[in-house]
Amino acid sequence: MKTEGMTEQEINERHAEKMAKKKAARDKMIATKTKEGGLLMVHTGKGKGKTTAAMGLAARAIGTGMKICIVQFVKGAWETGERKVLEHFPEQCVMKAMGEGFTWDTQDRERDVTAAKQAWQYAVDAMNDEQYDMVILDELNIVLRYDYIPLDNVIETLKNKRSDLHVVVTGRNAKEELIEIADTVTEMTQIKHHFRNGFKAQEGIEF
Amino acid sequence: MKTEGMTEQEINERHAEKMAKKKAARDKMIATKTKEGGLLMVHTGKGKGKTTAAMGLAARAIGTGMKICIVQFVKGAWETGERKVLEHFPEQCVMKAMGEGFTWDTQDRERDVTAAKQAWQYAVDAMNDEQYDMVILDELNIVLRYDYIPLDNVIETLKNKRSDLHVVVTGRNAKEELIEIADTVTEMTQIKHHFRNGFKAQEGIEF
Repeated sequence: MKTEGMTEQEINERHAEKMAKKKAARDKMIATKTKEGGLLMVHTGKGKGKTTAAMGLAARAIGTGMKICIVQFVKGAWETGERKVLEHFPEQCVMKAMGEGFTWDTQDRERDVTAAKQAWQYAVDAMNDEQYDMVILDELNIVLRYDYIPLDNVIETLKNKRSDLHVVVTGRNAKEELIEIADTVTEMTQIKHHFRNGFKAQEGIEF
Repeated sequence: MKTEGMTEQEINERHAEKMAKKKAARDKMIATKTKEGGLLMVHTGKGKGKTTAAMGLAARAIGTGMKICIVQFVKGAWETGERKVLEHFPEQCVMKAMGEGFTWDTQDRERDVTAAKQAWQYAVDAMNDEQYDMVILDELNIVLRYDYIPLDNVIETLKNKRSDLHVVVTGRNAKEELIEIADTVTEMTQIKHHFRNGFKAQEGIEF
């Protein structure tokens, strides 16, 4: 807003006018939104925050009384800070870590495929279990990228999920087919990363 | 990976080889990362997940024993689900909501400027308070965009923050000057949004 030469009162008046217009546009937009129901949300991209935002969604869901299930596809071995927080709500949050750590640490494709298949079966059961309002499939995209489980099967299952169930899928390189059927897709883009400045992974930030 | 005509064993062997190379590259990269210390992290962009990822970071930090302070610059009136979860950790998490809701709901610039200045002063005090390991400045970017508080002052303060303090800034349209001094900047890009498909804001997802 160009405010040069304007008095404080003029600035305030112009601001009120501009905001009133914005509010009217927003109210009109919101009035068209009437659908409710389970969403399929995808967090992808190379930036930070994909899993972290899913964990934030988990906290929000728990705070509103939902019951959730988190299936971790590849970070099984990690003890993360948020796990400790979520463990305070055992009645509302079930966490299942099926993976064995990032694949470049195991280097055993056969074992990874077995773990991925088990994790997927567990996820399918959770999505069919009506006690859950939200299921988070953490790092499922990684598993799909390496073809550890059949993409067609995953897409079919997600397409036919219960209409009241929220599903969150995380991981870089989300498949086109998944983006196609999702309700919301957010790409976390890395503009700058502290690793580039020589910082190492620190407790409370990365894990 | 092209696997046509390959046996399962060949696929597994090639995978192990590829992963070993990746791991070597990764280990080499990690060995150069030795710095520790407080980071300035920015979540910006038009997509979902900026505040949610900050809340996830808060949960992670709490889980590792940190003490954090969250200053909400513009969503003061909102009762969010994650607030209820964070309230379980009163010893480790202080939340201060100073704003009066999104500016298009108040349309009173003078009141917004006053609230923003108070919030910023509170934030400065929190950043100087050595009991905190992390301070989250939620939606500070919005306040900066509307020139409610002087950018120079904010940049100077953040540049000279305690070296062991983590600071997280959220909000779309992050200023260039802020991106410049940040350690990590993630842009949440909206590829698809369920509002476009007629879904309304739902409890547990948007608030």
